[in-house]
Amino acid sequence: MKLSDLHESGIIENLRRGFASCSPDVLQGIGDDCAVIRQGRQNLLITADMMIEGVHFDLSYTTFYQLGHKFLAVNVSDVLAMGGRPEHFTVSLGIPKTLTSENIDDLYKGMSWTGRSFGVDITGGDTCLSLSGLVLSGTLTGSAKTPILRSGARPGHGIFLTSTIGDSAMGLYFLGKGKKRVHRFSPSTDRLRLIKKHLMPVPAALETTTKISAMTDVSDGLLTDLSHICDESHTGAVIHLDRIPVSRALRACCAREGVDAIEYALRGGEDYCLLFTSPAKVFPGAYRIGEITRQGRFMTDKEGRKVPFHAEGFDHFKV
Amino acid sequence: MKLSDLHESGIIENLRRGFASCSPDVLQGIGDDCAVIRQGRQNLLITADMMIEGVHFDLSYTTFYQLGHKFLAVNVSDVLAMGGRPEHFTVSLGIPKTLTSENIDDLYKGMSWTGRSFGVDITGGDTCLSLSGLVLSGTLTGSAKTPILRSGARPGHGIFLTSTIGDSAMGLYFLGKGKKRVHRFSPSTDRLRLIKKHLMPVPAALETTTKISAMTDVSDGLLTDLSHICDESHTGAVIHLDRIPVSRALRACCAREGVDAIEYALRGGEDYCLLFTSPAKVFPGAYRIGEITRQGRFMTDKEGRKVPFHAEGFDHFKV
Repeated sequence: MKLSDLHESGIIENLRRGFASCSPDVLQGIGDDCAVIRQGRQNLLITADMMIEGVHFDLSYTTFYQLGHKFLAVNVSDVLAMGGRPEHFTVSLGIPKTLTSENIDDLYKGMSWTGRSFGVDITGGDTCLSLSGLVLSGTLTGSAKTPILRSGARPGHGIFLTSTIGDSAMGLYFLGKGKKRVHRFSPSTDRLRLIKKHLMPVPAALETTTKISAMTDVSDGLLTDLSHICDESHTGAVIHLDRIPVSRALRACCAREGVDAIEYALRGGEDYCLLFTSPAKVFPGAYRIGEITRQGRFMTDKEGRKVPFHAEGFDHFKV
Repeated sequence: MKLSDLHESGIIENLRRGFASCSPDVLQGIGDDCAVIRQGRQNLLITADMMIEGVHFDLSYTTFYQLGHKFLAVNVSDVLAMGGRPEHFTVSLGIPKTLTSENIDDLYKGMSWTGRSFGVDITGGDTCLSLSGLVLSGTLTGSAKTPILRSGARPGHGIFLTSTIGDSAMGLYFLGKGKKRVHRFSPSTDRLRLIKKHLMPVPAALETTTKISAMTDVSDGLLTDLSHICDESHTGAVIHLDRIPVSRALRACCAREGVDAIEYALRGGEDYCLLFTSPAKVFPGAYRIGEITRQGRFMTDKEGRKVPFHAEGFDHFKV
């Protein structure tokens, strides 16, 4: 079967069936933001991300510093989405001959910035030649006493977001139109604010994870990431479109461009904020956008109209 | 500065200076087979390897099963080279659209074979589209009570190898000439024996690591890997050319091809056996090939002639 017929989620599902872990210390294998491995009283968290030039980034609009910053940030986000503490980052680079050692220095400086912000050490890795574009591959380990899985949501729990979403996807839209690098972001315009969210995302961290039943980060797009929670928890969900938090900058830019802000918010992805469920009615500093139900996945609008939704985030193999 | 002027070891040295870990639990960062992180009484080992189509392998002569087998094997070898127990493997794949899901299945079956042989679980990872060739990137974690570093060699210690070397490099030589896949290796000829060593290496494991002062695996070539031990231990070394263990198959094939077997043994690489030092005079099941000295790096031949050697293994950025 061609991979383009199978899609990325299909590949992962195949792997999951084939590689159901037989070791009792693997509490969670494929199918969450991180793998979870029991180690005494703590649990070891492991997450991996690969970023390929031309697929995940374009060197015509990102600087190497920004790229390094983002590369570690997307991994940190996965550990935070388990309620964990990120600790050690291992980096493998496939480097084309056209790059300079200054480019690689800048890349590491960007990683270091994120590393310092979140207490992460860069502990080693591998470097090799790439015949085509730059390839970044990283594995971040972390720890958590009680990791928060995607599978803990129950009917009646609220669905929460830690911040506005959609900015990153709209930032990418502008980058695609402009194709030039932005080295400094101040003084900021609305457009630059969104571009910065895409190029240099700062992962969300929660002060406390008590009362959180399930969690993931918004990387593939809200609808897809919420679908992951529903899949793993065997539940449904209803979200209220008028409660989806959207920034003033996104609204303004979308109005000017004649595109729908809510579409960017629902399907955009790469927001790296947290999406979680909780039995609590309200959660300080988070937006309640809906409720977990027994089954079915729906969006409702102000008028009470109800439309089903599906996982529809970005799929590399469909494009 | 162009990367081709800096070389891979220079890139790693730059990173090492820039990213000297400030965290006290990182016992060993960049500069050994694995990073070592203190975790209670055990130490967490982390190693990463990236393999890129056209650089590290050629799909015209390796099957996907063999590739998966080797990919995990080279990572396992790094953990064994620390005297550690390999445990959890995280895999990221950059997949070109031309591949089929059967190809990916075969790749994972190969990994699983190695995983079962060494008690390694495949716990997760990332899959994404690659616009050019297949990219494999993996991170293996493991544990060791007392990790064996490259830095523990002292003058007077013997230098040992766990098996014959050079087969893999000569296998690659034949693959380069033939460029066709070999699906089954029995009944084996000498040539197929060497090709199998290249395509499906089985990492060496030692029963005991007591009395071992420094260790690494032979991946870049004996001279380069021994230089790593000398660099980290601040010592010299003398190896005796007539004691380098070379297989009968390698000797026979090299004689037929008119090439020097000892050159393949010294500089070939990808053997994935262990190179270690020990204060012991002899080590059961290992070949003593030389001694650690205060300074200078030399090879001596039967007639007692002495020539200096340098790290001369494969450097991706020099080619």
